[in-house]
Order: sequence, then structure tokens, then C-alpha cells
Amino acid sequence: MNSALPLGVTMGDPAGIGGEILVRAWRALRADGPRFVALDDPERLARLGAPIEVVGSPEQAATVFERALPVLPVPLAVPARPGQPDAANASAIVASIQRATTLAMRGEVGGIVTNPINKAVLYAAGFRHPGHTEFLAELTGVPGQEVMMLACPALRVVPVTIHVSLRDAIAGLTMERIVDVGRITAAALRQDFGIAAPRLAVAGLNPHAGEGGALGSEDAAIVAPAAAALRAEGIDAGGPWPPDTMFTEAARARYDVAVCMYHDQALIPLKTLDRDGGVNVTLGLPIVRTSPDHGTAYDIAGKGIASPASLIAALRLAAELAARRSGGSP
Amino acid sequence: MNSALPLGVTMGDPAGIGGEILVRAWRALRADGPRFVALDDPERLARLGAPIEVVGSPEQAATVFERALPVLPVPLAVPARPGQPDAANASAIVASIQRATTLAMRGEVGGIVTNPINKAVLYAAGFRHPGHTEFLAELTGVPGQEVMMLACPALRVVPVTIHVSLRDAIAGLTMERIVDVGRITAAALRQDFGIAAPRLAVAGLNPHAGEGGALGSEDAAIVAPAAAALRAEGIDAGGPWPPDTMFTEAARARYDVAVCMYHDQALIPLKTLDRDGGVNVTLGLPIVRTSPDHGTAYDIAGKGIASPASLIAALRLAAELAARRSGGSP
Repeated sequence: MNSALPLGVTMGDPAGIGGEILVRAWRALRADGPRFVALDDPERLARLGAPIEVVGSPEQAATVFERALPVLPVPLAVPARPGQPDAANASAIVASIQRATTLAMRGEVGGIVTNPINKAVLYAAGFRHPGHTEFLAELTGVPGQEVMMLACPALRVVPVTIHVSLRDAIAGLTMERIVDVGRITAAALRQDFGIAAPRLAVAGLNPHAGEGGALGSEDAAIVAPAAAALRAEGIDAGGPWPPDTMFTEAARARYDVAVCMYHDQALIPLKTLDRDGGVNVTLGLPIVRTSPDHGTAYDIAGKGIASPASLIAALRLAAELAARRSGGSP
Repeated sequence: MNSALPLGVTMGDPAGIGGEILVRAWRALRADGPRFVALDDPERLARLGAPIEVVGSPEQAATVFERALPVLPVPLAVPARPGQPDAANASAIVASIQRATTLAMRGEVGGIVTNPINKAVLYAAGFRHPGHTEFLAELTGVPGQEVMMLACPALRVVPVTIHVSLRDAIAGLTMERIVDVGRITAAALRQDFGIAAPRLAVAGLNPHAGEGGALGSEDAAIVAPAAAALRAEGIDAGGPWPPDTMFTEAARARYDVAVCMYHDQALIPLKTLDRDGGVNVTLGLPIVRTSPDHGTAYDIAGKGIASPASLIAALRLAAELAARRSGGSP
């Protein structure tokens, strides 16, 4: 592991739990986990109780990692206050993401792990992207190609529609988008996850996958043709499956990823199975990107009670994906 | 347990797995489980390998239960063939349900446990009810008052909308229906489940429960007022909660039942947590009614591989609810 490139970890919203879980993750991983460098404000991290070492490059970070949390400085405009976001720090939050992405595009870090942001804070400062992931797709030159995957040891899911109302998710569902998501997902499972012939389980939209039309027309009109189109491309895609029975242990053993039609169809089973170990992975980018599967958690920020489990899982998975991309074994 | 009234178990579709799981349930429960009587065709049950004893009343059934499966005869019109439903038997299927219900209304059985039916078979024979549960509400004189609960040891859920397309579930969601379901559910948890002050968790409809309107208007316009109306009646109802995080182990510890907005929001977490032990309970009826949480399973009928776990759980829960209704302790 130590010969691999370190990962770059972004600041996220400094009023959230990102800093404290980063420090806890470093303590957990310093001895033998994946190496990483924080793109962050050294002073604010130092106040969180870890030994900090400002470095000049990711390469240098790898050498100090066992004794200190290495930081490539991205200075805040105003001091961070837990639970109290400040739009004055928006440009630093964005700069951290940009700098980490540039390092990944140049091959100086193996991939990036992003701490949670609050879009509202960034919007107030002029940020114009729909979200974190879409911003990364823009930065890496593949707008619209990003696919969100949530992964835990028991289950991988990709929602075809994401942060829209349930009504708009139904209205916006198209065969083309399901096929695009399925294709990008299958390619990523082969290349980054080391699954030679990935098995996709395509979820129905309606109860019982529409029950032959009695419970909605979309499964026959949109979802089934999409699954058939994926199969015609040589992808092992089954479905549409009745959503309620496809996440049992026996059903999960029969596929590598569930392609879900809307946000909660994907996230309810994932979080029900594994609240803390979930990792968000962005497929379809030219760089490796993972993030913890939670938000800024302002309500508990600064209290020292936030769990680093999801960030640690995100770091481990990013290292595994980066190793495969570089041709090594994870 | 043995002093309690026996339960009445309906035939369900005789081409499905009902008969074989009934025989297996009897073997599992004969020594010390709840007593029951089958409203079924004695010849077809005898062919499934259990000792059968035709009885004249539920009272008599209780006395033979340890040595034979007691049957109140409901003759089939034509022999049952596994996996091959026959509309010629529709009137027997319906008669079994009617007779069990009558016995429960008269207080001769403690409650009814219904084996799965196939609505299409009954429709072909002139059945005009939307489903099994609605038929029971009609028979017991409380049409429209029925509420479906799914229960397993880890979770109880009540879907406010059920067997409709996802699009129609959204269109049909009203504050009044959520309040009705919440009220009936709270009363049932108090009376039948022995929970003095039931805690209801009302799920949002949209991702993140609408995120302040950014992800849909229904949570603020319909769900939140419904939860508030329930609280105004003295019912401990929280929400609308973000659907994806409300089924984690930690979240489930904070409520007794999740009031869900649509079929799969309720059934995905339930079946993900416990595929075999789920029980369907109808709340709001003057009688106790449970059923296994699966269908006729024509594909495996007659093969001897169907699990009786859900039927056994349904029998145990019905006995528990019946004991509370009769004033005894379960």
C-alpha cells in the first residue's frame, strides 16, 4: 500500500464534521492504512488535536503520514465555527475541491475523497453547479457522465434519478438514461472494481414492477426495454425486478449492483443494511472519487461524537480503486 | 395457550403453496404452538401427507390438534393441481374466507389467518373486490377502515397507499388518509399489541422529506400537516422523516411503527430486514386477521420446498393479538 500514490482529501464545509472525522480517520489509518493528504486549512486542523505537518506535495505527504497528518494548505477566509456555516469560506471550500481534482488529473494523487459540503452555503457565494458530483464532472471534462454509486459490504446501488422530487423522478425517467447509467456502471465495475462480468439487477419503478400493467405502465414501457437494450450490448442486466424483494440476502447474492429508479429505492435498502459503512463513489469520471455517505452534520459538529466510519470506508475504497486503475493489485 | 380459542386458517388458492405450508406449520406447532383449524378440502390436505381429522366445530378442533390437523370441510369443485390455478375452485376459495370470517365474528375462533389467493383467478369467477383485505373489511362491516400492517421482529410498517402505481400513490396521497391510517394504527397498537403509548414515525414522501421544498412540495403540504393533526389528537407522531435514514437500527429504536407513503417505501426495508418472518396484519377490523407476507408462489408449489416461516409467524402473532382482545395475556 505504501508504494501507492496518496489520496487527496478535500476540506468540505469547515463548519461541519469533516475536520474532526478526518483527524480520527488519520489516527485509525496512520500505521497501516492508505496514505492521504488534506487539502485544508492547517490551523483549523491543528485545533482539532492532531499533529499537523504542512507539506509541499503529495509525494512528500506520503513520507510524513505515520507521524503527522499532512496538509497542503488551503487557507480559510474566516475561522470555522462548528455548526455555523459562513459563506465567506465558500471560495476556500471550492478551492480545495479544485486543487484536489487537479492533483488527481495530473496523477499526483491516486484519487480524491471529498468531505461533505452544504450547497446552500456555496450558492450564496455564487456557486452555480447542481451539486458536488456535477461540479467534479465539469472540472474533469465529462459533464453529464457522472453516475452516483452507493456501496457498502452488503450492497451496491446506483440511482438513475437522484435529487429530484419523487414526482419529477417518475416524469424524468427515460430508457436512454437507464441505459447510460447501466453502461457506465458496468464499465466501472469491470475496470475499477475488478468484476470481469458484472451482473446488474434493474429495479422496477412500480410495486411488483407494475404487475403486468395493473400497477403502472412505466416498467413495461421504459424499464424493461432499457434492460433489454443493455443485454443487447452484452451486459448481464436482469429486470425489471419487483423492488420490495430484490434486496433480501438471497436476492443480493445474485447481482453485483442494483440499478434503481429513484433516490429512496436505492438509499433505503443501503442505509437499512449498513448505516455507517456506506461510501459514495462517482463512476464515469476520469479520476477516482469517493466520499462518505453523510452530510455536514452541523447538529453534532464540534462535539467530538461524529463517526469516522464512512470516511474511513471511503478512503479504503478509493485506495482500492486507485490501485486497480494504476494496474496494481489492491 | 391451550385454553385460548383456536384460530381459523383459510384455504387460499389450492394451486399455490398454502396447503403444504399449512401442513408444515401444523407439524411445527402441534406440540405447543397456537391451535388452529383449517377451512379447507380434507382430501387435498390428506394428500399432502399429514394426518387429517374432519371436525364439526372449532371447539372440537382444539381437542384433536396434537394428533391430527383438524379440518372444517370446504370442498373443492375440481382437484387442485400445484401451479395450475383453476377458476372452477374460486367459489370454494371464497367460501373458506367467508366461513372463517363468520366464525371469528361469532367468537368461535380467536381470529383468522388467511393463506394467499390470486385475485385474477377470483376475478375470472366474478369476485368484485379490490383484494383480500378489502373483501374482509366488507364482510366484517367496516369497508374502508382496513389498514395493512407488515410486521417482523425488527420493524412494523403501515403503507398509506398500497397497490397502485407510484404515480397514482403520489396523486392519491391526502392528509385525511394519512391521519386515518395513523389513528387506526395507534389504536390497534394500544389495544392489540399492548403498547400503551405507541410512537409513530411518519415518513416523508420525497428524498430528504422534500428538503424544505427543493425536492417536492408534498412533505410540507400534506405529510407535515397530517403528522401535526395526529399530534393534536394526542398521538405520538413524529415526522415527516427523511425516508432513507429512518430504517437504520438506531432510528428504529425510536418508534413502534413507520407510517409509509407508498408500497415499496414500506416493503423494501421490511423485506430487506427479514424476508421470511414478515407477517401481514389487518388493522381496523372487528376481528383479528393475519396472513403470511408472500403470494401463492405457483412456481414452487407442489415441490415441498416452500418455507412455512411466514405462516408460522402469522399464526403466532394472531394468537397473541387474539389473547389480548379476549383480555388474557399472550
